[in-house]
Amino acid sequence: MESVLNYLERNQSRFVDELCHYVRFRSVSAQPQHAGDTRACAEWLVNHCRDIGLEARLCPTDGNPIVVAKTPRKKTVARRRHFMVYGHYDVQPPEPFELWTTPPFQPTIRGRSLFGRGASDNKGQNLAHLKAVEAYLKTGTELPCDLTFVIEGEEEVGSKSLAGFLQEHRDELRCDAVVVSDTGMPAKNLPALTYALRGIAAFEITLHGPSRDLHSGIFGGSLQNPAMALSRLLATIHDDKGRIRIPGFYKDVVALTKFERKQLARLPFNRNKYRKFLGVPELFGEHGFTPDEQRSARPTFEINGLTSGYQGEGSKTIVPAWAKAKITVRLVPDQEPAHIIKSVRAFFEKNCPPGVRIEVKAGHGAEPYMVSPQSADAQAALRALKNAFRREPVLLREGGSIPIVNQFKKVLGADTLLLGLALPDDNAHSPNEKFDLDVFEGGQRMGAMLWRELA
Amino acid sequence: MESVLNYLERNQSRFVDELCHYVRFRSVSAQPQHAGDTRACAEWLVNHCRDIGLEARLCPTDGNPIVVAKTPRKKTVARRRHFMVYGHYDVQPPEPFELWTTPPFQPTIRGRSLFGRGASDNKGQNLAHLKAVEAYLKTGTELPCDLTFVIEGEEEVGSKSLAGFLQEHRDELRCDAVVVSDTGMPAKNLPALTYALRGIAAFEITLHGPSRDLHSGIFGGSLQNPAMALSRLLATIHDDKGRIRIPGFYKDVVALTKFERKQLARLPFNRNKYRKFLGVPELFGEHGFTPDEQRSARPTFEINGLTSGYQGEGSKTIVPAWAKAKITVRLVPDQEPAHIIKSVRAFFEKNCPPGVRIEVKAGHGAEPYMVSPQSADAQAALRALKNAFRREPVLLREGGSIPIVNQFKKVLGADTLLLGLALPDDNAHSPNEKFDLDVFEGGQRMGAMLWRELA
Repeated sequence: MESVLNYLERNQSRFVDELCHYVRFRSVSAQPQHAGDTRACAEWLVNHCRDIGLEARLCPTDGNPIVVAKTPRKKTVARRRHFMVYGHYDVQPPEPFELWTTPPFQPTIRGRSLFGRGASDNKGQNLAHLKAVEAYLKTGTELPCDLTFVIEGEEEVGSKSLAGFLQEHRDELRCDAVVVSDTGMPAKNLPALTYALRGIAAFEITLHGPSRDLHSGIFGGSLQNPAMALSRLLATIHDDKGRIRIPGFYKDVVALTKFERKQLARLPFNRNKYRKFLGVPELFGEHGFTPDEQRSARPTFEINGLTSGYQGEGSKTIVPAWAKAKITVRLVPDQEPAHIIKSVRAFFEKNCPPGVRIEVKAGHGAEPYMVSPQSADAQAALRALKNAFRREPVLLREGGSIPIVNQFKKVLGADTLLLGLALPDDNAHSPNEKFDLDVFEGGQRMGAMLWRELA
Repeated sequence: MESVLNYLERNQSRFVDELCHYVRFRSVSAQPQHAGDTRACAEWLVNHCRDIGLEARLCPTDGNPIVVAKTPRKKTVARRRHFMVYGHYDVQPPEPFELWTTPPFQPTIRGRSLFGRGASDNKGQNLAHLKAVEAYLKTGTELPCDLTFVIEGEEEVGSKSLAGFLQEHRDELRCDAVVVSDTGMPAKNLPALTYALRGIAAFEITLHGPSRDLHSGIFGGSLQNPAMALSRLLATIHDDKGRIRIPGFYKDVVALTKFERKQLARLPFNRNKYRKFLGVPELFGEHGFTPDEQRSARPTFEINGLTSGYQGEGSKTIVPAWAKAKITVRLVPDQEPAHIIKSVRAFFEKNCPPGVRIEVKAGHGAEPYMVSPQSADAQAALRALKNAFRREPVLLREGGSIPIVNQFKKVLGADTLLLGLALPDDNAHSPNEKFDLDVFEGGQRMGAMLWRELA
């Protein structure tokens, strides 16, 4: 083990260079113009896995290809445990460009942070695991278990191809547990095991009014304004206490236990610091819950984008032909996306103001997730975290969604260990995304120790 | 007079070519990239006025130049009446381009319509008046009064420079009345005198939330979503009967008289045809008023545009940093823009949801306008309309705003005769704007007859 850890320590500078190379690919899965960049990123990753000593291949899908890389299998008689490491090489859109201090795809180091789109979510995190395995393979240290890396290119657009891929390769991929580093840790020296994730359901609502933009002076007053109708419709969602008014919405929500609320209350939290960090005049959320509970253990209804009418300079006096809202609902155990999609759609259709035609498109959905932090594998992971970061790890629920985690359970029968390496100020999905280089190194150590603990 | 009318009849084909040339200029005053095109349009117009026989010049302003063109003055002893003809050569933005059947700046004739941005609003209408005067000048027929054309280039962005220009040239421009053809007529063979216009007040509201777009999974639930806050704020504006809830909003509204409601009820109107023409599933407006009343004699609050968060393809799971609405309020006599701006701003600031910072920018404003249709000049105009279109004209109130009409009264002491030539289906401010060529010709005849009736 010592030679593995020494190898990691000696090679940090090269690893950072490799991460920069990885971040340079504009692998934005939501934007068709970057399909070529996304594929180039996958091809680089396969070659990199081969250089490390893994047996790697690119698996085509209907969308972006999936990288599969395996440790060389020993022909032992005794059955070894098999773990899958999941990550993604695609990234969120970088817009708005003008808010980046340095360009999103020109990775730049300032202090101990590497800035660039995807540095934290998720390239830095999956590369840390690859570097841990590289250390075993390049020092000739025997890995105590078999590993398969599955690194996909559609996580940011709902992992459309992965479920089918898992089904198709279920025999090859069947494993004892899945390891995912795509969640967060509360602070640089405070490692965490995440035992619950929120699910998601995405919508796009369009209200159609007149067949074209109309002069608001000549016609305004005699027809419904689609932008106003959309505002009125969206305003019906919450009551004044931040609670969602859609009938049946909270029906399947598992209430937080006292133990859980105690665990969450142990996290470092300073209201004023958090408010300043977000940059808001005051915090706001569902009454009766702490901000950490609101953002991890309670369902939400968020507008991600609004579009209607004229958006350019100056003014254009029109009644717009249509108005659109992009929406994602975050779900908690045991809410089901299909049920929530049905309830939301029914609510929208019922409450749509007169004079417009409503169109509701349901996008990707994912179930919320929860596992027991008391299992043997979870306890092993907690030991690896503790030894790698030299600090007692905390138990977390996280507000983000990793839709595929439920598929691992359903298709492969495997629980997932969520060992996140993203810091709260990593700006995932925001301008100036970064990854902490100390955490990068700690993550590599954790990866290296993990296989021994799990085996 | 006969030679004037004959001249008009003989030259229609050339006049249409000239209108096409005029429409080809991309004189979009709201878009800085078209400043050069706008100036080129003004220069062409000055030269065209000179070709007709007018004394024309380009008057620079802080914005787009103003074209001034005068009939050659006779040195008569007796004081002749002096009238000003006002129009504008700037046009609305053409977006969205994809909804135009033929490109907005490639004028195209289909049937008796000339399609192109600005064909109706207002190039075709002011060119009709120029052609009427050309007929007098080119046939050597004596004009019974002095005329001054003032054709500006900032009407679509609030006529910012014109008020100062009128002040500066008030002696030169002092006149007995102003003639403006920038309103509508109900049908091709139904001429109209418009005796009232709505005013306008423009706003841009921005709600500022977090200092950057945030991951809606990681942070969503613990802060106000600016797009949701904006929806909630905008939803407070109207009650369920389409009435505006801003305190004091209706205080200065002069109620419609029985005579006025009778006049408006005489207009050709078919609810189902109008609904289909707008392309809406049903009409909607303030309860207790007919659609013609709602869109001409009642104040409105219209959202012209909404912008927030991610608007591209696919989804981006963020809490957006800000949300913005472009708004115009239409005013009726005797509402005052300054008072309304104050009330609206106070209402927004008072009702802004928690957790966001509100910014309200007031844009251009214009008072509503009303004159008596019983005056001698109005009666003269009604005779010219009747003779030119061979049909009894109707009395109209119009929903649009011509902000400068109030300045004519204040600065020049002159009432304005609104002799509009735009048909309801001319698509002013919309894709596929057009101008009817029979109305173009009728407008020229009306212009020619008008000066005799007014003198």
